[in-house]
Amino acid sequence: MTEPVNICEVGPRDGLQIAQTLMATDAKIRWIAAMAAAGVREIEVGSFVPPRVIPQMADTAEVVRRSLEIPGLTVIALVPNLRGAQNAYEAGAHKISTPVSVSEGHSRSNLNRTPAESIVEVSRLVDWVKVQPRRMEVIAGCSTAFGCSIDGVVPTAKVVEVASGLARAGVDRIMLADTVGYAHPAQIKEVVRAVREAIGPVLYGLHLHDTMGLGLANALAGLEEGIRAFDSCLAGLGGCPYAPGASGNVVTEDLVFMLESMGFETGIDLAGLMAARRLLHEGLPAEPMQGQVAKAGIPKTFRQAA
Amino acid sequence: MTEPVNICEVGPRDGLQIAQTLMATDAKIRWIAAMAAAGVREIEVGSFVPPRVIPQMADTAEVVRRSLEIPGLTVIALVPNLRGAQNAYEAGAHKISTPVSVSEGHSRSNLNRTPAESIVEVSRLVDWVKVQPRRMEVIAGCSTAFGCSIDGVVPTAKVVEVASGLARAGVDRIMLADTVGYAHPAQIKEVVRAVREAIGPVLYGLHLHDTMGLGLANALAGLEEGIRAFDSCLAGLGGCPYAPGASGNVVTEDLVFMLESMGFETGIDLAGLMAARRLLHEGLPAEPMQGQVAKAGIPKTFRQAA
Repeated sequence: MTEPVNICEVGPRDGLQIAQTLMATDAKIRWIAAMAAAGVREIEVGSFVPPRVIPQMADTAEVVRRSLEIPGLTVIALVPNLRGAQNAYEAGAHKISTPVSVSEGHSRSNLNRTPAESIVEVSRLVDWVKVQPRRMEVIAGCSTAFGCSIDGVVPTAKVVEVASGLARAGVDRIMLADTVGYAHPAQIKEVVRAVREAIGPVLYGLHLHDTMGLGLANALAGLEEGIRAFDSCLAGLGGCPYAPGASGNVVTEDLVFMLESMGFETGIDLAGLMAARRLLHEGLPAEPMQGQVAKAGIPKTFRQAA
Repeated sequence: MTEPVNICEVGPRDGLQIAQTLMATDAKIRWIAAMAAAGVREIEVGSFVPPRVIPQMADTAEVVRRSLEIPGLTVIALVPNLRGAQNAYEAGAHKISTPVSVSEGHSRSNLNRTPAESIVEVSRLVDWVKVQPRRMEVIAGCSTAFGCSIDGVVPTAKVVEVASGLARAGVDRIMLADTVGYAHPAQIKEVVRAVREAIGPVLYGLHLHDTMGLGLANALAGLEEGIRAFDSCLAGLGGCPYAPGASGNVVTEDLVFMLESMGFETGIDLAGLMAARRLLHEGLPAEPMQGQVAKAGIPKTFRQAA
């Protein structure tokens, strides 16, 4: 009777990219393995970006290779361009995620190109991936789809335009990302409806930040529009180095708590996530960890769906 | 075109009752006046309980009297019984709020009587209030309506039973309170529907806590069921001394941000609330203050409805 919701843990990528200290490769693997043991089936484990840009991601090829040894885990890597996709393919990633900013300002700041130029790059990337012998799914993330700390308001029509361009480019799935946490529930519903109207089921999920405290309310709005896939970060790590004011992702533990309480099935064991938090803290002791469930404890009324 | 939502600030009562240090009367008044200046039209300024039980509330009569001098402000006081109602009436409170626990465990712990005995007490209280020359509205709060950290699950039928008893007792309005923050959005919808089915428009609003991080998601669920009144606390203060594990109320600033972003009209100026936070901090420097809007700053895309 329970309906599944897919959670993709993006902590080892989005969560670490603005961390103040480096997390050792062994510590990353222990943390990733603990989340997989808790039932997390998809993890974005790193990004193939130049190490001088984000030193925290310099070991991504090794992290991908070692993550592939964890049974049942789908290993995802972020790539900014074709070169990154080739590196991810070589390392063996099951899926890649590539960001395309909807707003011009964030696009210039993050990728040094316009959204239209990004769509052309994604098209080249998809063409390359599709002729490789091994299948590798391509997910495109529409960054700043609900507002931009550089450009301000992002019109819904612009999100539809970028998402439609990405769908035409042949990506398998599209995520709408609230990169700076400006979204509100009514906007989530409006944008999801408009994008689905344009591209149908290629619209897959939401990547939400809790900057203004609306992360879970926005997830609820997405759920009510039929969204069944979310990115999130253990302990609410995360942020974007190219989006001033951006802060942590929606907290995986709290999202799992909400979904399972409502009767959705995530396949993720909440107590297991608490254990994974301890490994995260061991590997990155200086980083503040968020999360209300961890702070308050799992309430006695809580029952997992599964 | 905008639809109003009523926010009752309960910080000076719910927020202070578990604070570690006492807030001076003058500081309370400055804080209350700053919130009123920001547009908050209803404030629960204290409770008429024995000072030995909650020393923080010993000055409630004076706080009520001085709050009455603030133009346009509706002054509310919490009362646990008829004696408290008489004191509130004498001090001049516009409205009183009286808590009745739905769960037996919390009822015993908080009020030392059963829910049924509480309803009898509320009935006596209402009968007394109604024959006074001055009108004073009586609000009943159904505590632990969504779960109890002592008893665990609270059946919806039990909430309906208590709310129906209170409606028969003649209270003007009923709030459903998630005292320990166990509620989830699907449950909010279910309970609101069931209680409204039983008592109609006497069901007025929701009093939510953010213990598990679901405060705003639960508020959204309430909004979607037609609820247009919420209690909240500036800086997310709050908790119940008789409910183990209870923590802060939903954050007024973040709730106002969500509502105004969605196009609802609260009449409350967000920048004014930020100023009120400074006075709260001055009056209670040791108390940690929550709130994502205060942490992140008001985003450039934000426009107030009014």
